[in-house]
Amino acid sequence: MRTLWQHCRAATMVDGKYSAIEDAAILTDGARIEWIGPRAAAPDIGECERVDLEGAWVTPGLIDCHTHLVFGGDRSGEFEERLEGVSYAQIAARGGGIASTVRATREAGEDALFETARARALGLLREGVTALEVKSGYGLDLANERKMLAVARRLGEALPLTVRTTCLAAHALPPEYANRADDYIAYVCDEMLPALVAEGLVDAVDAFCEHIAFSAAQVERVFQRAHDLGVPVKLHAEQLSSLHGSSLAARYRALSADHLEYMTEDDAIAMAQSGTVAVLLPGAFYMLRETQLPPVDALRRHRVPIALASDSNPGTSPALSLRLMLNMGCTLFRLTPEEALAGVTIHAARALGLHATHGSLEAGKAADFVAWRIGRPAELSYWLGGSVPHRVVRGGALIDVDRIDNIAR
Amino acid sequence: MRTLWQHCRAATMVDGKYSAIEDAAILTDGARIEWIGPRAAAPDIGECERVDLEGAWVTPGLIDCHTHLVFGGDRSGEFEERLEGVSYAQIAARGGGIASTVRATREAGEDALFETARARALGLLREGVTALEVKSGYGLDLANERKMLAVARRLGEALPLTVRTTCLAAHALPPEYANRADDYIAYVCDEMLPALVAEGLVDAVDAFCEHIAFSAAQVERVFQRAHDLGVPVKLHAEQLSSLHGSSLAARYRALSADHLEYMTEDDAIAMAQSGTVAVLLPGAFYMLRETQLPPVDALRRHRVPIALASDSNPGTSPALSLRLMLNMGCTLFRLTPEEALAGVTIHAARALGLHATHGSLEAGKAADFVAWRIGRPAELSYWLGGSVPHRVVRGGALIDVDRIDNIAR
Ligand SMILES: [Zn+2]
Ligand SMILES: [Zn+2]
Repeated sequence: MRTLWQHCRAATMVDGKYSAIEDAAILTDGARIEWIGPRAAAPDIGECERVDLEGAWVTPGLIDCHTHLVFGGDRSGEFEERLEGVSYAQIAARGGGIASTVRATREAGEDALFETARARALGLLREGVTALEVKSGYGLDLANERKMLAVARRLGEALPLTVRTTCLAAHALPPEYANRADDYIAYVCDEMLPALVAEGLVDAVDAFCEHIAFSAAQVERVFQRAHDLGVPVKLHAEQLSSLHGSSLAARYRALSADHLEYMTEDDAIAMAQSGTVAVLLPGAFYMLRETQLPPVDALRRHRVPIALASDSNPGTSPALSLRLMLNMGCTLFRLTPEEALAGVTIHAARALGLHATHGSLEAGKAADFVAWRIGRPAELSYWLGGSVPHRVVRGGALIDVDRIDNIAR
Repeated sequence: MRTLWQHCRAATMVDGKYSAIEDAAILTDGARIEWIGPRAAAPDIGECERVDLEGAWVTPGLIDCHTHLVFGGDRSGEFEERLEGVSYAQIAARGGGIASTVRATREAGEDALFETARARALGLLREGVTALEVKSGYGLDLANERKMLAVARRLGEALPLTVRTTCLAAHALPPEYANRADDYIAYVCDEMLPALVAEGLVDAVDAFCEHIAFSAAQVERVFQRAHDLGVPVKLHAEQLSSLHGSSLAARYRALSADHLEYMTEDDAIAMAQSGTVAVLLPGAFYMLRETQLPPVDALRRHRVPIALASDSNPGTSPALSLRLMLNMGCTLFRLTPEEALAGVTIHAARALGLHATHGSLEAGKAADFVAWRIGRPAELSYWLGGSVPHRVVRGGALIDVDRIDNIAR
């Protein structure tokens, strides 16, 4: 089934630039882009459906390459208590913080987890996201990490979204392993990863490298096992301090290293050499009122691809919007709107290992795109919150989001 | 036509607190609340329509008490240039900044201005806003200020929204009065205000008191004329420096003083005595990457009512979401979620002189409310961006927002 989408301008995002085509046409054949270019140069295609995009700007479907979208409970109660003057220490002492999310996630049934994650994923889809990553990491034992990853897989089956799963078993130390971090890492490496990979639930393996989580040496054991299992790695690195996790990630040719506020120039050089994407997470930076900015100039200088993601999670970034991250990437991190848009399209695709098939408008790639009723692409970063009128095309088909809400359960 | 809304919890926001009612019922008679209380105590009302709110939390309809929603053009091009390294000076030299918005607003026809403002107002309505303020201030001459205020009035007629208009002729010096600020103020006082008030277009009068705008002495002339005309005043004050505009506003019993980052404790005392609301605008604070925080503790200590608003404008706060301001009020200004919610309900109503009829759920007040599918009111401030599922009731009637989009032109 071929369709010619026309009367639009396209920000193709090829090579991470707008690479704009004025008066563009896009020919899709089923779920793929067959041809894209200036409308005047369109091939002679004979009979096909034609869709008038009424002058909209077309971008690739947005890609949210770092989320913790599956979780039980939320932490709005803690959020309120903190603002009312209760200290972190008090909240932690009574089992709050990530421990409360682990507890709620373990207690939740798979269907309940699916319903809440589905609502959040649908919110992202509504604003133009057509692919996203979902991490585990609140289960912290085999059964519960499996449950989280299975929910993530179901999201991809139930919704018109490409979902990539990441096993983040090395996210935090579960209570039953208190003071036995090395034993937990052994459990992750020897039991969890082999089982979950064998079950086809793991597209990538991630870890949290930080004083409050796991050491570089512990992370390396996880990376080594992932490597042995043939699964690519990612890393939460240099968010709160400089442990050179991003250099370690580069050594293991990680798809991405994420956060990176405290990374050094040498880390950037290592990432550039390994083709590791720098995923910046302005939502967490904003919510935590951080002041240490990620070294964007160093990343630019060494041509490290920069992605932006929501980091959607109940503790440090309860973000329901990827578009807001475009504004935050520009306002807080001083990215240009073009860099920000590349960060949620082509570079986000690379952070998920999907850049051969997603993230830019090119012949042969997935027909996932968004038609925005805006005057220039920078408007996607400029408007603060709310929604910008648009239509979502996924796999060559116009998505009727309101209809999804009713049928795709 | 009476309706009993039940199976809900209500954050009534009486006295600026949640003042929650568990298992509440709300009896509306046409556009007013006839009774609200615990369902078990509901009066015997005989025949009436009953609506099951399915356990939702009900809050008053949200009120955005400071917007510049009517404007021509947008400034996304400048936003992009700034991030690409072009200086403010260069942009100003070629007629950018507020001058470009004044030019675009003057050039736009009333219908064109209406269409863009309507789309923005509809976005706010979609997320639970049932009343908002619209300022003029990009016309800067009689005909164009009139045009802006007429558009604001039309918004209130075309959409199920209560709209309050504010004449902000003293926003900036128009080019034709360059270096003649006192002459412009005379024109505002002697010609614009009397004419626009006589035409019924002005619910309040505002000014911008700042080194880059008008002096306290000039503002006082505007306030004196507004007072003579019987119209309440408001003020943009202490955003960038301390000129004690907020104390001046208090002397004229202003409805509100807005921004206030640089206000002093004495200013807060003056505002408390006059009942002037402190309207905080975290969107502009965020977009400008300000570091000087408004003195929230002083405002609390002296019991100055605190409101929050979007400041929606094309230059310093291109905000399409009031709910995002709840999060920013908490995250950036350290308001509690309860204070933030009061800031977009009862205190926002007071900032518009509407507190006798709007802003809280009480018998006799407007039946404007929102039913949110959340577990606690703090979720409204906790989630970052995106949408939270809800239904909007305005004037006692459920609003079908998607339908509005088609018919209310
Ligand atoms: Zn994360
Ligand atoms: Zn303003």
